Amino acid sequence: MATLQAIKYNDGSLEILDQLLLPESCTYISINNVQDAWSAIREMKVRGAPAIAIVGSLSLAVELRKLAAPETKKDLHSLVKEKLDYLVTSRPTAVNMQLAAEACVKLSNNLVDKASVDAAEAKDVLVKHLEAMLANDIADNLAIGEHGARDIAKKCGNKDKLRVLTHCNTGSLATAGYGTALGVIRSLHKANLVDQVYCTETRPYNQGSRLTAFELVYEKIPATLICDDMAAAAMKEFKIDAVIVGADRVAANGDTANKIGTYQLAVLAKSHNILFYVAAPFSSIDFQIPTGQSIPIEERPHSEMTHTGSIRTAAAGIHCWNPGFDVTPAELITGGIVTEKGVFKSDQLVPV
Amino acid sequence: MATLQAIKYNDGSLEILDQLLLPESCTYISINNVQDAWSAIREMKVRGAPAIAIVGSLSLAVELRKLAAPETKKDLHSLVKEKLDYLVTSRPTAVNMQLAAEACVKLSNNLVDKASVDAAEAKDVLVKHLEAMLANDIADNLAIGEHGARDIAKKCGNKDKLRVLTHCNTGSLATAGYGTALGVIRSLHKANLVDQVYCTETRPYNQGSRLTAFELVYEKIPATLICDDMAAAAMKEFKIDAVIVGADRVAANGDTANKIGTYQLAVLAKSHNILFYVAAPFSSIDFQIPTGQSIPIEERPHSEMTHTGSIRTAAAGIHCWNPGFDVTPAELITGGIVTEKGVFKSDQLVPV
Repeated sequence: MATLQAIKYNDGSLEILDQLLLPESCTYISINNVQDAWSAIREMKVRGAPAIAIVGSLSLAVELRKLAAPETKKDLHSLVKEKLDYLVTSRPTAVNMQLAAEACVKLSNNLVDKASVDAAEAKDVLVKHLEAMLANDIADNLAIGEHGARDIAKKCGNKDKLRVLTHCNTGSLATAGYGTALGVIRSLHKANLVDQVYCTETRPYNQGSRLTAFELVYEKIPATLICDDMAAAAMKEFKIDAVIVGADRVAANGDTANKIGTYQLAVLAKSHNILFYVAAPFSSIDFQIPTGQSIPIEERPHSEMTHTGSIRTAAAGIHCWNPGFDVTPAELITGGIVTEKGVFKSDQLVPV
Repeated sequence: MATLQAIKYNDGSLEILDQLLLPESCTYISINNVQDAWSAIREMKVRGAPAIAIVGSLSLAVELRKLAAPETKKDLHSLVKEKLDYLVTSRPTAVNMQLAAEACVKLSNNLVDKASVDAAEAKDVLVKHLEAMLANDIADNLAIGEHGARDIAKKCGNKDKLRVLTHCNTGSLATAGYGTALGVIRSLHKANLVDQVYCTETRPYNQGSRLTAFELVYEKIPATLICDDMAAAAMKEFKIDAVIVGADRVAANGDTANKIGTYQLAVLAKSHNILFYVAAPFSSIDFQIPTGQSIPIEERPHSEMTHTGSIRTAAAGIHCWNPGFDVTPAELITGGIVTEKGVFKSDQLVPV
């Protein structure tokens, strides 16, 4: 069975998996223009910063492919800029769509200045640029997967089968495809090295039980769901070999901000002598930030903790603390930081 | 405001808090006879092994008080034995009702043999015996609370205010009243020593968010609910002073079986230099069991993890691991084991 695809793109035809319907139903919806993409992003049918940028960009590629050749490159540029400005408003806090828009506008500007390129050719160049984002992101994730799987296998003494634990969702449903930490697990599975994957629920938003568990079942990777308070018991009971998680941002010294609960798993892994890995694109390493102390912790709505749908699961009136992520100190990342450029010890990070 | 009472008993009148309606509604129901008690226990309106035994026993006291003086002590004995045998069938796996029934039948037998006591006097003795269970259990919990609060305050260097973290529900809703670990917290609060209580959700059954949070709000103890994956982040962020949990069973060497997630909190407390306490009646110490390795781990239904009410929260087809409790090694219980007889270092447990 092919890897689960949250974004399907083929010759100007774009479909996305509606994540709002997971895990109940696995339904794809067509994205025929930038309006469709804007709505899908706004309504959270697509999630994860890279995925948002790619769906937005591909929706513009869909429109440009259908477009009759523009009269002038300036007409084309105005059109492209207007559509991208609109797409950026779909989720203003996700920086990736903004960055993708800026890169595309810059390319379009360069094309306007380039006398040797006509309007039809400029359109083709922009389409190819937008379409390449999906393939590039997946290629990076595949490289992360291969580097990570090789390193884990080696550091675990080339055991026949490995038991790994992961947190949150870092797979096809959070990236353009394949995934980061879950990509490493996919690569381990392809190499027939997985005995069992333990995935945490990841309270309060349940990305583990809803999304990661869905991907693992879909691809028939042997997997067991545990609650977040069972991690240490599982580490001890099942003799887990490695913990692999994603990253929202890695500081220059290797301190890593990721989904709340990551720090705790790193402490528990250390005390159980279990390797701890972070997997992320090299672009997640922010060399402007010296240490994790400079990374602000976002607080999320308390209703995520007090309700499941319309069912109240916490006493009325209780105060809640709901940080979106935490920071894992570099020294706890004992396995390494896995990127498409290779696996780095946290004290060996250098801009490339 | 008085301490939350899950069991209200006064001169032959018994009411219990219907725990099925928590946290939505705080409703008391009358228990007028052993049939009422049997149904309330079977339907989980009352939970927790000590509470079950006490509600069952008190329901018999209610009946005996209403009963006209029996003709003979043998008639009385037959009646009492029949009612107790019936009560034991309400939740056969909870050993406390069985033990309470055996003790009462033994007393009744002794009364039959005692020539100086007539039938009416025998009835009074049995009623007093049954009624004493509630008061005795609460008195033990109050003593646990006082011993624990004093020890924590002392070991924390008599700080003005303390931040403590607790797991699961060990309060008025799990015991006859006051509670064990939550009883210690109540005593700290009475002494005006609580800055903030952090209570974990306690997945998958949410005893923390539903029951402990309810008790803390009810008694206006300053408290914050956290998800189970936020414990380490909270320990670091809020500089928590002590973790206090209950116990299902303590082995002779101090290893402690308690709600799943306890072991993890003990590891995290140790790595953050935070005192870790277990609070339980002395009768929870099982000197027949040398270490925690002999304690079997019960697995519970997967539906607890995959659904909240009728809402599916986990992908269909995912395998689950749902152990009901875990074992915390004695060496991680750095504060001590708090009982009604005092606070013990885990290597100082001796039958008393």
